[in-house]
Amino acid sequence: MNFKQQYVRYKSLVDEYLKECVKETKPKSVYQPIQYVLAGGGKRIRPLLVLLSCEAVGGKMRDALHASAGVEILHNFTLVHDDIMDHASSRRGRATIHTRWDENVAILVGDELLALAYRALLKTKSPHIQEITKAFTEGVVEVCEGQGYDKEFETRPNVSVQEYLLMIRKKTGKMVAVATEIGALIGNAKKKHLSALRRYGEYVGRAFQIQDDLLDIIADEKEFGKAIGGDLVEGKKTFLLLEGFRRAQGVDKMLLSRVMKNGGIPKREVPAYRRIYYRTDAIGAARRFVERDIANAKSELQRLPASNARTMLVWLTDMLLHRTY
Amino acid sequence: MNFKQQYVRYKSLVDEYLKECVKETKPKSVYQPIQYVLAGGGKRIRPLLVLLSCEAVGGKMRDALHASAGVEILHNFTLVHDDIMDHASSRRGRATIHTRWDENVAILVGDELLALAYRALLKTKSPHIQEITKAFTEGVVEVCEGQGYDKEFETRPNVSVQEYLLMIRKKTGKMVAVATEIGALIGNAKKKHLSALRRYGEYVGRAFQIQDDLLDIIADEKEFGKAIGGDLVEGKKTFLLLEGFRRAQGVDKMLLSRVMKNGGIPKREVPAYRRIYYRTDAIGAARRFVERDIANAKSELQRLPASNARTMLVWLTDMLLHRTY
Repeated sequence: MNFKQQYVRYKSLVDEYLKECVKETKPKSVYQPIQYVLAGGGKRIRPLLVLLSCEAVGGKMRDALHASAGVEILHNFTLVHDDIMDHASSRRGRATIHTRWDENVAILVGDELLALAYRALLKTKSPHIQEITKAFTEGVVEVCEGQGYDKEFETRPNVSVQEYLLMIRKKTGKMVAVATEIGALIGNAKKKHLSALRRYGEYVGRAFQIQDDLLDIIADEKEFGKAIGGDLVEGKKTFLLLEGFRRAQGVDKMLLSRVMKNGGIPKREVPAYRRIYYRTDAIGAARRFVERDIANAKSELQRLPASNARTMLVWLTDMLLHRTY
Repeated sequence: MNFKQQYVRYKSLVDEYLKECVKETKPKSVYQPIQYVLAGGGKRIRPLLVLLSCEAVGGKMRDALHASAGVEILHNFTLVHDDIMDHASSRRGRATIHTRWDENVAILVGDELLALAYRALLKTKSPHIQEITKAFTEGVVEVCEGQGYDKEFETRPNVSVQEYLLMIRKKTGKMVAVATEIGALIGNAKKKHLSALRRYGEYVGRAFQIQDDLLDIIADEKEFGKAIGGDLVEGKKTFLLLEGFRRAQGVDKMLLSRVMKNGGIPKREVPAYRRIYYRTDAIGAARRFVERDIANAKSELQRLPASNARTMLVWLTDMLLHRTY
């Protein structure tokens, strides 16, 4: 079985679990959108990391299945609430919850998803269950903090690349690190393997987010599942904008500073800004950042004993770097 | 020390904990409103029930302090999100989060409160921590379900008293029962004492909600901390509306059916509807319901060994029945 096949097999385990895990159907206003969310697909990177981290330290993958679903449900909770806050109308090519239903439904559905995430996680049988649930909870705290910074940055004219990196460490990196940490805990990892996997998660999480910023501007609209340049239109302080601003001069600097101050541009101006990102080599800088993180992530994996799961993690890391959607 | 003094002492333990428990200050957009929420007061009934239930089964009250704060923080999470969904502008005499800040802040602050609730709970040292956290999580699930029904009922012209009772069992009753259950678990309760305290919580929770419906129409506006008749204005299907509708005839029935269908009345019509509630004796029915639940709740307490904590629980139950705010 090649890596792609293994990935698909693990992914369908998670998809299956998510399809089956919610038995309730009433009230309909809550459980219809929840089924819609959980059937929404996605790459399931986070739950895969839980399963593979558990295996990579010598644990049984099946023991981590509940927790892996918990991490994925948690991720979906953040998407539902972030989409309200970002006024996003589509996600993975489908209408968002507050668009298809309404904002009240989306608030409540997000809340319930968070509870369902804990429900799945707490089915885990492990002597470390308290530590696992604590790690999960600290992940939620930091995700909220990260989203808070993200929203604050939208209306602040002066945000540094450094502040941006703090924000994405909380908003994206932390939960990826929690995914690997929880998997390792369930697999009864040695301390050094636990630390290596946590650091691996931090690198991958950061690379993932910067790659996401890149894809927002260079991806294929259909495959990406959302409108290209959405971050610019929303006035989001992405790595590209901040790094581009730092590097730009003359008219380019003036144009980028306009985005920094106004909080958004009309959609028709996206191509002009894309050209600035290329001209300032903000695109190249982002790419190099991602590549360096990916290299560091892989070298953390080398601290683990050789195993099929470790090789799968390397493959998954590469897939991440080369994804176009 | 009399009961009132004991109540104040326990309550200030909880207040103190809540004031101290959040060390983070950044991002300000998240932590300023969180401090505002946690300093907002309230009767702290739920955390008191955690502490007293632990003591009543022979445990040490201090062992349940983290969990009691967790239950109260969770309660505050529900208030912040419910206030958005209900378009409520004030709570306990102060502006709600989405009014003082904005909706995005309120969504995020609620999310973070839920995480902080788990953080506090998970500091508990107990061999039953997994069971405790599971009970807590099932509480969150049912609170969301209850709120879902509540919102569905607003736009449904035909809701029975029975459906209403299911809704409040989930929205209010369950978390009160979880409070007593968690306290009992931390105190290493015997099975029969655990069950008695859980049932006590269910009765008290239901009485509490119906009393709340009553107070919305008969309380003193200043003491109550929110506008009188707000439920009618919002078109909420309360016990009074549904029981009144069931009992009413002629013009009264027509007027109440108008509220059932339209989802709300102008504020100036509140006094007329209050008179209908008296005329149909919906007020009396609600009072009798509360009194019966309180009596049942107290008889559950009699299954516990006699103790100061048990007597305090009886006192607290009575206080609840006679509260005017």
